[in-house]
Amino acid sequence: MSSSTSSKSQAQPLRPPLPTPTKIGILLFPGFQLLDICGPLDVLNLLSRLTPLHLTILAPTLAPVTTNTFLSTSIGSDFAQSVLPTHTFATAPDDLEVLIVPGGFGTRDEESVGELVRFLGEYAGLRWVLTVCTGSAILAKSGVLDGRRATSNKKAFAWVKAQNDKVDWVPKARWVVDGKIWTSSGIAAGLDMIYAWIAEVWGEETAQELADSGEYVRNKDPDDDQFAERWGTV
Amino acid sequence: MSSSTSSKSQAQPLRPPLPTPTKIGILLFPGFQLLDICGPLDVLNLLSRLTPLHLTILAPTLAPVTTNTFLSTSIGSDFAQSVLPTHTFATAPDDLEVLIVPGGFGTRDEESVGELVRFLGEYAGLRWVLTVCTGSAILAKSGVLDGRRATSNKKAFAWVKAQNDKVDWVPKARWVVDGKIWTSSGIAAGLDMIYAWIAEVWGEETAQELADSGEYVRNKDPDDDQFAERWGTV
Repeated sequence: MSSSTSSKSQAQPLRPPLPTPTKIGILLFPGFQLLDICGPLDVLNLLSRLTPLHLTILAPTLAPVTTNTFLSTSIGSDFAQSVLPTHTFATAPDDLEVLIVPGGFGTRDEESVGELVRFLGEYAGLRWVLTVCTGSAILAKSGVLDGRRATSNKKAFAWVKAQNDKVDWVPKARWVVDGKIWTSSGIAAGLDMIYAWIAEVWGEETAQELADSGEYVRNKDPDDDQFAERWGTV
Repeated sequence: MSSSTSSKSQAQPLRPPLPTPTKIGILLFPGFQLLDICGPLDVLNLLSRLTPLHLTILAPTLAPVTTNTFLSTSIGSDFAQSVLPTHTFATAPDDLEVLIVPGGFGTRDEESVGELVRFLGEYAGLRWVLTVCTGSAILAKSGVLDGRRATSNKKAFAWVKAQNDKVDWVPKARWVVDGKIWTSSGIAAGLDMIYAWIAEVWGEETAQELADSGEYVRNKDPDDDQFAERWGTV
């Protein structure tokens, strides 16, 4: 963040700043991890009160998408939530600038993830792609991460790495930035990543104002990841 | 937490422990704050893989409930999410043990909140009520908080206090416990509260295992609230 701040404070940038994005999309699939999308989206909801933003919620069909998985139902739980998509892959606007990809146990379903992977591989023109948790495994399957640095959920790290060995998987990181692609560690790490991304795009002052409003204590250091040791990735 | 842990470790408790709850409800209303519900629910989703839990999502009707408010639309944003209820107030099961009440800008809508307030005032038998953010303002309007200690969102604290002066509002607290009623500070504070509540009910080991899986760094001290100073409540 400090290098970004200092470069932005220079009086004569080498090129004028690009316009901030307004068109943000998010992918849903059955068995998505709720906080993977609702953490970043809650912060962006607050940001949408400060600057005009448009959200597209993408899924294979317009049917409500559930967090439910057999991990809960198999022990007798009936405990899930459903979120409504706004567009299908077929009706997705072609001018999205940002796409957020969540993870969750549903990423293990080859059939439903296959559609996401094809969509990701074919969709062009995105200025940023942000993944939370095992969302990076979906992105890895699409080939978009080949030769790039990325991280993922640390408890599931071995499984994620096995999805594509052409990715430079970073075993200890709260989040990783490689060009236009930001990947975060598991679940709650998506909150730290989205604040860092907002700081990068809209400035640190805006990011901190949102975090103060959300009463969230940020981890601003992408290398500060206590869950790498906890789950044995290092 | 330490007093709870030590009392549970005594060989001869004064009375046998009560059964852990299984029936959990959550209230929705237009303009709810997304993370207020999705923070606690994401943790409970993980818990529902360890112990059988049943979720009821309550709203006035079965129509999808949106996070949208004029704070976003008035500046040209189109950025919201909709969650599906499972029951209406009229069809609510009568054996809920736990109810979670979110906050959000929708708590300012007297008409929609009026229905919630009546429901809260009439629903009996709950073993726990947990509010996040300005959800405590709804609870305060129902009279349930009269004479009790409670906290709320710190940026909106003056407005919350004005809803009911018979509540002992705590100006600096991440969360407050008064008997069966748990109230948290704003938005992200609901995560720290739900982990503390799970530690109280299912034990600290379970709570920490869930936090490690969710890669969430807990604030375990209910008095550690840096946003009280930030928003001038103390």
